[in-house]
Amino acid sequence: MEKHGGHNMKFEIPKKDLLSVVGKLVGITNEKTVHPILNGVLIDIADEQQVYLTATDLEISLRAKVEAQVSVSGGVVVPARKFLDVVKMLPGKTVSCRLVDNQLKVASGKTQYKIATWPAEDFPNVSIELPDSMIDVEVESLKRILSRTVCSVASDKDCFDNVLAGVYLHSPGIDGLRVVGCDGHRLSYDQIDDFPALQLLGEQEGIIVPKKGIRETLRLLENADQVSLGLLENRLCIQVPNALLSMQLLEGNYPQYEHVIPDHTTSIMVDVERQVLLGALRRMAVVTDQVHKSIRMTVCSDLLCLEAGTENPMTGTAREEIPASYTGEEFKMTYNINYVMETLQNMQTDNVRIHWVDKNHGGLFLEPDNHNYLTMIMPMNE
Amino acid sequence: MEKHGGHNMKFEIPKKDLLSVVGKLVGITNEKTVHPILNGVLIDIADEQQVYLTATDLEISLRAKVEAQVSVSGGVVVPARKFLDVVKMLPGKTVSCRLVDNQLKVASGKTQYKIATWPAEDFPNVSIELPDSMIDVEVESLKRILSRTVCSVASDKDCFDNVLAGVYLHSPGIDGLRVVGCDGHRLSYDQIDDFPALQLLGEQEGIIVPKKGIRETLRLLENADQVSLGLLENRLCIQVPNALLSMQLLEGNYPQYEHVIPDHTTSIMVDVERQVLLGALRRMAVVTDQVHKSIRMTVCSDLLCLEAGTENPMTGTAREEIPASYTGEEFKMTYNINYVMETLQNMQTDNVRIHWVDKNHGGLFLEPDNHNYLTMIMPMNE
Repeated sequence: MEKHGGHNMKFEIPKKDLLSVVGKLVGITNEKTVHPILNGVLIDIADEQQVYLTATDLEISLRAKVEAQVSVSGGVVVPARKFLDVVKMLPGKTVSCRLVDNQLKVASGKTQYKIATWPAEDFPNVSIELPDSMIDVEVESLKRILSRTVCSVASDKDCFDNVLAGVYLHSPGIDGLRVVGCDGHRLSYDQIDDFPALQLLGEQEGIIVPKKGIRETLRLLENADQVSLGLLENRLCIQVPNALLSMQLLEGNYPQYEHVIPDHTTSIMVDVERQVLLGALRRMAVVTDQVHKSIRMTVCSDLLCLEAGTENPMTGTAREEIPASYTGEEFKMTYNINYVMETLQNMQTDNVRIHWVDKNHGGLFLEPDNHNYLTMIMPMNE
Repeated sequence: MEKHGGHNMKFEIPKKDLLSVVGKLVGITNEKTVHPILNGVLIDIADEQQVYLTATDLEISLRAKVEAQVSVSGGVVVPARKFLDVVKMLPGKTVSCRLVDNQLKVASGKTQYKIATWPAEDFPNVSIELPDSMIDVEVESLKRILSRTVCSVASDKDCFDNVLAGVYLHSPGIDGLRVVGCDGHRLSYDQIDDFPALQLLGEQEGIIVPKKGIRETLRLLENADQVSLGLLENRLCIQVPNALLSMQLLEGNYPQYEHVIPDHTTSIMVDVERQVLLGALRRMAVVTDQVHKSIRMTVCSDLLCLEAGTENPMTGTAREEIPASYTGEEFKMTYNINYVMETLQNMQTDNVRIHWVDKNHGGLFLEPDNHNYLTMIMPMNE
């Protein structure tokens, strides 16, 4: 392996592996940045067999390695999206990359691209270190608790409290890891029981992880078979084979969310077939008002009646009745239909259990016989 | 069948047939109109077995019939898009429609929609009459000559001459039907030989059919097995089983397009494998400048060399060589890459034949051994 001060870098790399990694790195880059280099992927070579690729938005960083045949080592930064587009289009199974006159020649077969680059030295020096201790988690469980809660997290734009732009990771008891997402209109949590939370969190009650970090973690887990977590100062590190994701935690105190969840032992309880309700809601959604998106749910003996479009009959109205296991007085609630549909999609049980206290409290959507999961949706004023 | 002055219309209709027809009618309606009723579909009932559905934008009208079980006859206008959305979502194979209090109840199983309506009397009185004589055409041939030329027709917005917003139908000789599309940057024609053009056109040299009419004709032909054409004054009528499309022709004289097509008997001629060229162009398209979209093609001995991105190297450049059957001097041309790709996609032969005269004339893209088809693309200035 020759060395030319990083100016003639040259390697051959399997297209499939490169594509998979660059696809994940593109998610990290910040296309709205004022620093164009944050749209870039740093390519750097440590030895004859490995090419490292790194992307960062200064808060979240991902560093991945791909096995390659390295002829000349070096480093350079290329625009991530363009690099992805170009690699995707190349014919053949192997991609040859070579730095010539500050341009990266990317070639395969008779096709040759040249991409403008930035010098490796200009790439921000992001900390991507491993904590001393990492805790293994079962991949599917981690995917489940993150994916079922991240949808309840506030988007940056409609967030009145910064901490609500992240999920809250904490220990609900002695052991276990609970993830909470909340945006003021709804709240979801899910947890795994066998997790040494004390070892991860130490003295802290919990940590707040930014929404983008969770989304990128889920992308990283798509084809991973092992994952481990660790904390290093104010950063959460997520390691999968061949890649390390590191993200800065949000500062602040997460709200005492347990206090807003009504006691549901004495509330109205309705069980409905989940797919039946979801199908009916999809039919109702066709006529819901674009602004309010509201669905009125009325429960009476053995029936759940759904009505949509009633606030603006000019757009059409819809009505459907589905069977429900309930006996008691008639009870009406109105919700944002999208929140209810998203909640039902996230569930895994045949039935959904709905608890209602009164019009001032959120409705609870639960999986029967699973106390680890809960979504609360606040009612809409009619 | 009862009659209640059209105010209690009631019928049952197969969902599949209704969906297929309403899907086509939605294309005719004009969503940008200042007359909301032009977003509507007129439903009217002639007898116990048939429901007629009509849509119009005042220039193009489509009337279709669907077999149904009619209990009460009548007529009403419903918003086309909403009606389509609602019917699409209904469970079951049969849809029951009933007019109650100026709302159309559309129901199936336990799902019931109500849609606001307009009175049938308010729907424009569009002429959808059949000419005395209609000429049968082979469906696949008509599809081919329309679909291969309509893409070269100018969009309304960038059209400097109104007649270029339509395709030109005329007879290229004694018999046959030729369709021409042109937008000033490119020109395509295609024709069928065995067509009694004189019978359709009479004294006229040709007729100009609006682009939207051609697009809707192609949609109508998607699942038709018979089609016939006829002229009634300034309207072209296209009849398929169960539906009649009628469109107003564009007025004006179509340009003498044959005069701008260079004589290619003495020009440079290159044959290339069509799919190989198309694949290479797709790879080049990744780096073409978003504004110019230009591709430089250089032909030399046995090679066609493609280059993209050269006008703006910051977005990256690409280069590829493909085999070409050519012997002669080097020759360079630059085209809009999208026009070339669209032309190649429209062709049906293994090879494409390209003729070049000089930089002032359009390049001709032909199917070898098929004199009926031609596309000419004007070169770009470099």
